[in-house]
Amino acid sequence: MFGYSRWRQRGRKGLAAKPELAQLQVVIASPEPGCDGYPQLASSEAYHLTITEPVAVLKADEVWGALRGLETFSQLVHEDDYGSFLVNASEIYDFPRFAHRGILLDTSRHYLPLKSILTNLDAMSFNKFNVLHWHIVDDQSFPYQSIYFPELSNKGAYSYNHIYTPTDVHLVIEYARLRGIRVIPEFDTPGHTQSWGQGQKDLLTPCYSGKQPSGSFGPVNPILNTTYDFMTKFFEEISSVFPDDYIHLGGDEVSFDCWQSNPKVNEFMKKQGFGIDYAKLESYYIQKILDIVSSYNKGYMIWQEVFDNKAQLKPDTVIEVWMANNYVQELSRVTGAGFTAILAAPWYLDYISYGQDWKKYYSVEPLNFPGSEKQKKLVIGGEACLWGEFVDATNLTPRLWPRASAVGERLWSSRNVTDLKDAYKRLSNHRCRMLSRGIAAEPVFVGYCAHEARGR
Amino acid sequence: MFGYSRWRQRGRKGLAAKPELAQLQVVIASPEPGCDGYPQLASSEAYHLTITEPVAVLKADEVWGALRGLETFSQLVHEDDYGSFLVNASEIYDFPRFAHRGILLDTSRHYLPLKSILTNLDAMSFNKFNVLHWHIVDDQSFPYQSIYFPELSNKGAYSYNHIYTPTDVHLVIEYARLRGIRVIPEFDTPGHTQSWGQGQKDLLTPCYSGKQPSGSFGPVNPILNTTYDFMTKFFEEISSVFPDDYIHLGGDEVSFDCWQSNPKVNEFMKKQGFGIDYAKLESYYIQKILDIVSSYNKGYMIWQEVFDNKAQLKPDTVIEVWMANNYVQELSRVTGAGFTAILAAPWYLDYISYGQDWKKYYSVEPLNFPGSEKQKKLVIGGEACLWGEFVDATNLTPRLWPRASAVGERLWSSRNVTDLKDAYKRLSNHRCRMLSRGIAAEPVFVGYCAHEARGR
Repeated sequence: MFGYSRWRQRGRKGLAAKPELAQLQVVIASPEPGCDGYPQLASSEAYHLTITEPVAVLKADEVWGALRGLETFSQLVHEDDYGSFLVNASEIYDFPRFAHRGILLDTSRHYLPLKSILTNLDAMSFNKFNVLHWHIVDDQSFPYQSIYFPELSNKGAYSYNHIYTPTDVHLVIEYARLRGIRVIPEFDTPGHTQSWGQGQKDLLTPCYSGKQPSGSFGPVNPILNTTYDFMTKFFEEISSVFPDDYIHLGGDEVSFDCWQSNPKVNEFMKKQGFGIDYAKLESYYIQKILDIVSSYNKGYMIWQEVFDNKAQLKPDTVIEVWMANNYVQELSRVTGAGFTAILAAPWYLDYISYGQDWKKYYSVEPLNFPGSEKQKKLVIGGEACLWGEFVDATNLTPRLWPRASAVGERLWSSRNVTDLKDAYKRLSNHRCRMLSRGIAAEPVFVGYCAHEARGR
Repeated sequence: MFGYSRWRQRGRKGLAAKPELAQLQVVIASPEPGCDGYPQLASSEAYHLTITEPVAVLKADEVWGALRGLETFSQLVHEDDYGSFLVNASEIYDFPRFAHRGILLDTSRHYLPLKSILTNLDAMSFNKFNVLHWHIVDDQSFPYQSIYFPELSNKGAYSYNHIYTPTDVHLVIEYARLRGIRVIPEFDTPGHTQSWGQGQKDLLTPCYSGKQPSGSFGPVNPILNTTYDFMTKFFEEISSVFPDDYIHLGGDEVSFDCWQSNPKVNEFMKKQGFGIDYAKLESYYIQKILDIVSSYNKGYMIWQEVFDNKAQLKPDTVIEVWMANNYVQELSRVTGAGFTAILAAPWYLDYISYGQDWKKYYSVEPLNFPGSEKQKKLVIGGEACLWGEFVDATNLTPRLWPRASAVGERLWSSRNVTDLKDAYKRLSNHRCRMLSRGIAAEPVFVGYCAHEARGR
């Protein structure tokens, strides 16, 4: 990733008097988590980099900070026209403004081959992102190959080829870990679950047309004990497969039509005293899922509706604000209620438009909402989301990068780093850097990269 | 491109009774142009394909029709789950509705490596496009390596790597020819020429700030004889390097500010009796360029402004309508004046937006403008334009395909082929076909391709 030894070997000859960097010493203060640990929300990514000849020093509390500092060092080194590698003497104290800096990938609307995911993890590390929010399953397909419930992907994946085996999943997690990136899987219920129903009998609510089942199915069936038996076992597996402290449990966009049509659901509603408020039924379901996941000592992230619908949430719940409409007010409400928030709403990068839309993403100020200092501290970060309706391996990389880089800098750098002209220069330059590192990041605007290959 | 022999070899065993296609006979009626000729505007692309066992017959007047028929045949063959290749007995009479079906690529805002251009020619042939409109130079860079004027690219290209050598150009032309695709180069003047000025002294108009030259330059200087000496020699080269009957001479978006600022230009205006109508000066210039190119027995295409500004045009001039605003009326005006028209306005594919915008492109009816039958016949086709401000090798293919396929079908098929549901199915299927042929065409919507590779 960075090449100081190569740099020495290729140093210009006959210029012995020129200061030369011989070594980069990396000093990590804390023995924890060591090289086998996983990054966490509370991990330190701060580092202190001093570049003086002949020895540069990179100090960090934890390995994660060292990784960020190595990335910075690699970006400070540039090649001159003669093939020498140069770096300016510099001293940098650096740390992220927000602890959660995520990219959401959606592997359900379109399957993403492992290679695409790994390449994206590379790009994330080049941009100091630290969370892969893996929206792994949804209505359209269930590519996650479950150990306990293999029928879920046998029946629910697009095909036997369009799956992530346990080995694949492990590889993604490990590849991410080595780059200081957490992998938070999302298993969204009770809506967005059509594909689950293919391989798990009685999991989804049968919809009715008049007095007869219509043959179609709605959200997860919240009135059956078998549902919770299944979820208990399923999330036991997920909790063990994914080492991160958090699981994303979804909870967005639950349509009530099917529940309304089903006489047994309505009977249950009466018995529970829910009246005709299906949001209560939704909360009833979510509550049980949250309790199940809590019992495995996992924290959870959920989409904002779960909060809006007043489910009882553990204090350490992370609420992801995604609705573009009034997200500023929603941040006020969520943090006002004392919950931790993640902002995704202004960063739906699948919504493409003509021109330099990175400026729009870059200009978002996440803490620009009415609230106390205490509330502001509850916003722990944000995510750039690339939903998959129109994205697969053919266009993922150039669609996401370098547009997501703008989000990455917003979440890492100080609040006052906002100059668009400066950012344009850095972004164009960084895009060429990504290109030279094998990331097919699209151009920011007209121009060229010095190291572009001409060849066929 | 099509594989009937492989198909035989891999035919299912033990099913000898099943009808088997042993051969595809290709019969070309006319000895002209033979296999060494170039496709032209007037070429015939009609074909008649009869698939019956054991011998299918493809008849065409010219080789170009045979190429289109082979493409169709290859698309009729499908592989079943057992690896056998199947084709339905069928009889097809087919021919294009419009003779000019183009893709515009812009290699100035961003350089496109040769491989991108060739891959695009493959994709074009899979979609029966027959014109590559090569917008090869513009303000930003001059990648065309001229034989007579090598300084143009030495100074005007982004770098020595960002050029098309004579060998490169020849390769593009030949690769296109073998796919029945014409290559029409565009050398846009007098505007869009900043990069020309780098390597050709006195070609551009010096702009003035008050009574002093400001140091910046405007459009080509129309008042100097040296300008026309240069253009005479330059277009002599272009006429010989590019075999097509047509050259695109641009003529769009000429800004008058610089001409207005220049006292010598104003003196010339007076002498010519142009008053303060700089459109007359523009027409004066264009007229001379058109005359030069005519003298080399080339036809020319120009952007609509040249017509709007009332330059004297040869009757066989092709006018490209590009302004989205009122393009319907412009088609009326252009054809009403008896000129041939190409429609590009609704097909600027660089203007991306969220969702299935292919439907918008597909739903355009090029002849839906007020005019006589005779006028309608003057619309000879259209072009899907991918301007390069935000496009380079990283995103060209998925941005252009399969969105351009919608334009391709509109320009090839009958006017009454307009059903969006049918088209969606065919387009999704065709997109997967392109993918399996190595074209990274982006998804139309959610789903998957059966032959997508899972691997890393």
